[in-house]
Amino acid sequence: MTDTRPIGVFDSGLGGLTVVKEIQRLMPAEKVVYLGDTARCPYGGRSDETIAKFGLQDAQFLLDMDIKLLIVACNTVSSVALDYLEHTIKSVPVIGVVLPGARAAVLRTADRKVGVIGTAATIRTNSYKNAMHCVDPGVKVYGKACPLFVPLVEEGLIDSDITRLVAQHYLYDMIDIGVDCLILGCTHYPLLMEVIQGTVGTRMQLLDSALWTAKEAQDILTALNALAPKESDGHALSRFLISDLTPHFESLAESFLGRPLPSVEKLALEELVK
Amino acid sequence: MTDTRPIGVFDSGLGGLTVVKEIQRLMPAEKVVYLGDTARCPYGGRSDETIAKFGLQDAQFLLDMDIKLLIVACNTVSSVALDYLEHTIKSVPVIGVVLPGARAAVLRTADRKVGVIGTAATIRTNSYKNAMHCVDPGVKVYGKACPLFVPLVEEGLIDSDITRLVAQHYLYDMIDIGVDCLILGCTHYPLLMEVIQGTVGTRMQLLDSALWTAKEAQDILTALNALAPKESDGHALSRFLISDLTPHFESLAESFLGRPLPSVEKLALEELVK
Repeated sequence: MTDTRPIGVFDSGLGGLTVVKEIQRLMPAEKVVYLGDTARCPYGGRSDETIAKFGLQDAQFLLDMDIKLLIVACNTVSSVALDYLEHTIKSVPVIGVVLPGARAAVLRTADRKVGVIGTAATIRTNSYKNAMHCVDPGVKVYGKACPLFVPLVEEGLIDSDITRLVAQHYLYDMIDIGVDCLILGCTHYPLLMEVIQGTVGTRMQLLDSALWTAKEAQDILTALNALAPKESDGHALSRFLISDLTPHFESLAESFLGRPLPSVEKLALEELVK
Repeated sequence: MTDTRPIGVFDSGLGGLTVVKEIQRLMPAEKVVYLGDTARCPYGGRSDETIAKFGLQDAQFLLDMDIKLLIVACNTVSSVALDYLEHTIKSVPVIGVVLPGARAAVLRTADRKVGVIGTAATIRTNSYKNAMHCVDPGVKVYGKACPLFVPLVEEGLIDSDITRLVAQHYLYDMIDIGVDCLILGCTHYPLLMEVIQGTVGTRMQLLDSALWTAKEAQDILTALNALAPKESDGHALSRFLISDLTPHFESLAESFLGRPLPSVEKLALEELVK
C-alpha cells in the first residue's frame, strides 16, 4: 500500500529546511509541504504559552492541507509543546526533532556525558535531558542556551572572529566538563559546524537532529505502509509556504536546503491566527 | 484648555520604553498607554509590507483606546511606514522617532558628516538620510545596519569583549569616514552607549532619538492646547500592554524605563491581528 499525501513540516523560520533536505535525500519520492512562520520568527525567546499557541496554529494550517504525517522541525516548539500537540492532534502521527536527536546521543556517548545547545526555550525546558533519561537515566546532560548563534548565522558571519569568540564564550564549559557528544539543538547550528568543532576539538562528536528525524519519519511511514509510490517525483510536487518574504530569504533557505529553493508561496498571517 | 486623554506609544518590543521614560521626565502629568508587540518582535528583519501591516495593527489597537497623540517609538516602523500611517490615521497627530533624531543631528554636526546605525530595515530605507536632506541637502549621511546589537543587549552582554568586537566590526568605518555625529537609530542602542563611545572615541557625538521625540510630543501638545492638567499623576494613570509575557521582560523593561515597570497587562495576539 502507498499514500500519496504529503508530509507536513513546519518551523518558526527557514531552519527546518535542514529536515526537508534529509527527507528528500532518504525518501526522494515523498512530497513535502513546508511552512516557515517567517513573520513571527524567532520563537526561542517567547513564553511557553505563546510558543504552544503558535505551534498549534502552524500545525493546524498543515493539517488543513491533508498531510499524512506532521514533523515539528522546530526545536523550540518540539521542546515546549510536543506533548500538547500530540494530545491535540489525533488525525496523523506527530514527531518532533528532540527525541530522535536525544536517542542518537545516548547511543553514541562513551563517557555518558552529553551536551545540548539551543535556544533559551529549548534549554529552559530540559527537553533533551528528559528524552535521554527515558532511554538511560544515568547519562549526564549539560544544557547551554546560545541565543547569539541564530543572528550570527542570519547575518552570514559564519567564518568570523566574532563567531569564534561567541563559540568560546558558550562552549568552553562543555570542554571542562568532559562532554563527548554535543547535540546541535537548533536547526541553524549545523551551519556553524566548523566553528563549533574548531572550538570544542575533534574528540567531541557533534550531532544534528535533522538526519535522525528524517530517519524516524521513514520508520513510521514504513510501519504504516504509507510511503509514497516509488515512481513519484517528490521534489517536483513539494510546496514551500512562508508567512513573510523577508529580505534575503532565498539565500538563507538555500544554505539550509543545500540547493536553491523552488518557488515559494506567501501566506498571510491571518491564515495562521484564526 | 487641557486634554486628559492618554498619549499612545508603541514599539515592536520593550525598547520604546526609552521614549516613555523621556515623556515622563518632561511631562510628568501625561498619562501614557504603551503597547509592546513582544509576541512578534523583532520587526527589523521583516519585509516592508509586513512591517507596515504590523505597525497599522499596533496603531489601530491604541486608537481604539481613545488616545490624543500617537508616537511610533519603533525605528523600524518609523522608517518603513510612517507616511503610510500618517495617511491612514486622520483622527490624531502621528509622530515617529526618525524625524526628531534627524533634525537634532543636522543641528549638531560641524563637519556635516552624520552616521546612522539601526536595524536592517531602518538602514535599507534611508529614512534618516531622507529626513536630514529635507533640512540640509548638503549633509553627508552614512548608514550601517547592526543586527547583532539587539540580541547582545537582550542577552545582557553589555560590558563584554564580544560586544566590543562586534562594535569594532560595525563602527570602524564611521571613524575612517570622519563622521562627527552618530545617531543611535534603534531604541536598544542607548544601553550600549559606553561600548559604542569607547569604540568610536569621544570626538564623535552620540544622539539618542528618544529625548527629541518626547520634546516634539511636548511641542505638539502645547500647540494644540492639549496637555494634561498639571495636577494629574501621569505615572499612576499610565498603562503598559504587551502581547507576550516573554522570559525576563521585567528586567529588560526596567533597563529601558530606568525604573521597575508598573503592573503589565497581557493582550492576545488576536486583539492585534483582526
